[in-house]
Amino acid sequence: MKNNRICELLGIKYPIIQAGMIWCSGWQLASAVSNVGGLGVIGSGSMYPHILDEQLTKCKAATKNPFAVNVPLLYPDIDKLIDIIIQHDVKVVFTSAGNPNTWTSKLKSHDIKVVHVVSNSKFALKAQAAGVDAVVAEGFEAGGHNGREETTTMCLIPIIKGAVDIPVIAAGGIGSGRTMMAAFALGAEAVQIGSRFVVSEESSAHPNFKQKLLETKEGDTTLTLKSITPVRLIKNAFYEQVREAQERGADNNELIRILGRARAKKGMFEGDMEQGELEIGQVSASFKKIQPAADIVVEIWQEFIETKKQLAELDTDI
Amino acid sequence: MKNNRICELLGIKYPIIQAGMIWCSGWQLASAVSNVGGLGVIGSGSMYPHILDEQLTKCKAATKNPFAVNVPLLYPDIDKLIDIIIQHDVKVVFTSAGNPNTWTSKLKSHDIKVVHVVSNSKFALKAQAAGVDAVVAEGFEAGGHNGREETTTMCLIPIIKGAVDIPVIAAGGIGSGRTMMAAFALGAEAVQIGSRFVVSEESSAHPNFKQKLLETKEGDTTLTLKSITPVRLIKNAFYEQVREAQERGADNNELIRILGRARAKKGMFEGDMEQGELEIGQVSASFKKIQPAADIVVEIWQEFIETKKQLAELDTDI
Repeated sequence: MKNNRICELLGIKYPIIQAGMIWCSGWQLASAVSNVGGLGVIGSGSMYPHILDEQLTKCKAATKNPFAVNVPLLYPDIDKLIDIIIQHDVKVVFTSAGNPNTWTSKLKSHDIKVVHVVSNSKFALKAQAAGVDAVVAEGFEAGGHNGREETTTMCLIPIIKGAVDIPVIAAGGIGSGRTMMAAFALGAEAVQIGSRFVVSEESSAHPNFKQKLLETKEGDTTLTLKSITPVRLIKNAFYEQVREAQERGADNNELIRILGRARAKKGMFEGDMEQGELEIGQVSASFKKIQPAADIVVEIWQEFIETKKQLAELDTDI
Repeated sequence: MKNNRICELLGIKYPIIQAGMIWCSGWQLASAVSNVGGLGVIGSGSMYPHILDEQLTKCKAATKNPFAVNVPLLYPDIDKLIDIIIQHDVKVVFTSAGNPNTWTSKLKSHDIKVVHVVSNSKFALKAQAAGVDAVVAEGFEAGGHNGREETTTMCLIPIIKGAVDIPVIAAGGIGSGRTMMAAFALGAEAVQIGSRFVVSEESSAHPNFKQKLLETKEGDTTLTLKSITPVRLIKNAFYEQVREAQERGADNNELIRILGRARAKKGMFEGDMEQGELEIGQVSASFKKIQPAADIVVEIWQEFIETKKQLAELDTDI
């Protein structure tokens, strides 16, 4: 897209970014999105350092276009991840869940573009001050880990846009050309889409999870575990244990014990639809089919153009 | 607006509807909005039948344009309200919080247009089947009473638009021309705006409440009392009592006792900012000033046209 700061910054054709997601976005998905002209993102949050190393080697072999890595800043071995990213000459890093001051200058000294994910204007201003190139503003409807203030995409994007000078990428509730155009109306210059790419052929989500998402309806996800770290997931048997414990006033220790270890892997990667943690956004209620990632990008772009045409035809001479 | 089903249905110039709100939207506000060419709505939920009667007499004296009444269908004396509305020859009724089958046919037999407020596609389809003329689809970010499924405006509007044939009016998070255009991108044919009109000169909200809204920031509202009836309000001392009780697993009887009687009146109408219930939407974080309602309508419309122009100029030839 011409005259678009995000396309210029990241060297991409479409202002469509595939969100880095744990257990769902490896090299196959990232390279498929980058090859068609969006920005593919490898989600390193569920990878040991040596796995990320392998993934980057494979991704570079599969695409000549820019791709990115998402790094949760609270990752225990983060220094190892950062070193691997620099060694592989990755062009773009998305950081989330932590302080953007810690790694931004090191990444930028290696000529890596840095984008930080935020859920309010205070963190957006902090990220801008830390020198990041753009922010992702993620609303309450987004899947996975989410802000405590519960500000929705409709309310968040205009606030962040009004607060910062760097470009704003909208996330949360976006999975179509119509929602992408809504984000642009609100002031976004690009969109980050996670959930819709989980039901791509190339995502590493378990087939059970992809199938489950085709059956997901309004109200089937919820933001829970707010006293530990808020996360949006599908209501299943695991969630019911959490809900029951919360309703009787269980403390965080008990909630952490119920959560246990590797719940997200069990659900999203191993396919246990009842005892696994199934992170996904509200927009999953709109999913109709499993498609190649490239088709998703092109379909969204075409609907975006069609919506632009419809809005231009609105008769506002009154 | 030409070729707009809501403007044609309701006989209004701008597809901008002022939401009927308890304690804030009497005849002064409704007539001011209707006079400028939007649809003013009297919120009858906080009115005794004889008060509504007076309000309708005054509203008709203050405007020759169509205006509406919002009726919560769970109102105890609803048959009296409906009779008064029919006697006054009101042209449009917005119904909410109840079964649209109960009153729609009676209202329509008196040539009254009926619009029902919903928060999911199941209720939208039920309302359409009951014969209503349009639905308001209201997202999680909206102020006051709200749906249990927490679907945000960004996710809800495309789902409802895809489910029904009657026109969809978007509500929740809308208070500007940009957000109005986002709603149109999502498929809405009009918008319903509540919170922004609370800070109009003509709203009957207490001056303390209006002032408080100019200071409200992101994260200052929350959806609470979900086990009784979900309501979005400002976090104050009253809310802290509710939160503390909920965290230790208090039952509904205790929550109802804490809520007590007339909390909303105490806050929004009488000005007690700590012990009152202060219902408002997330969009209140964007409010800058108290203005005449007519200026709000015109400002939103002008920004809507400006946003339309900006979107039309996006260079999508790639």
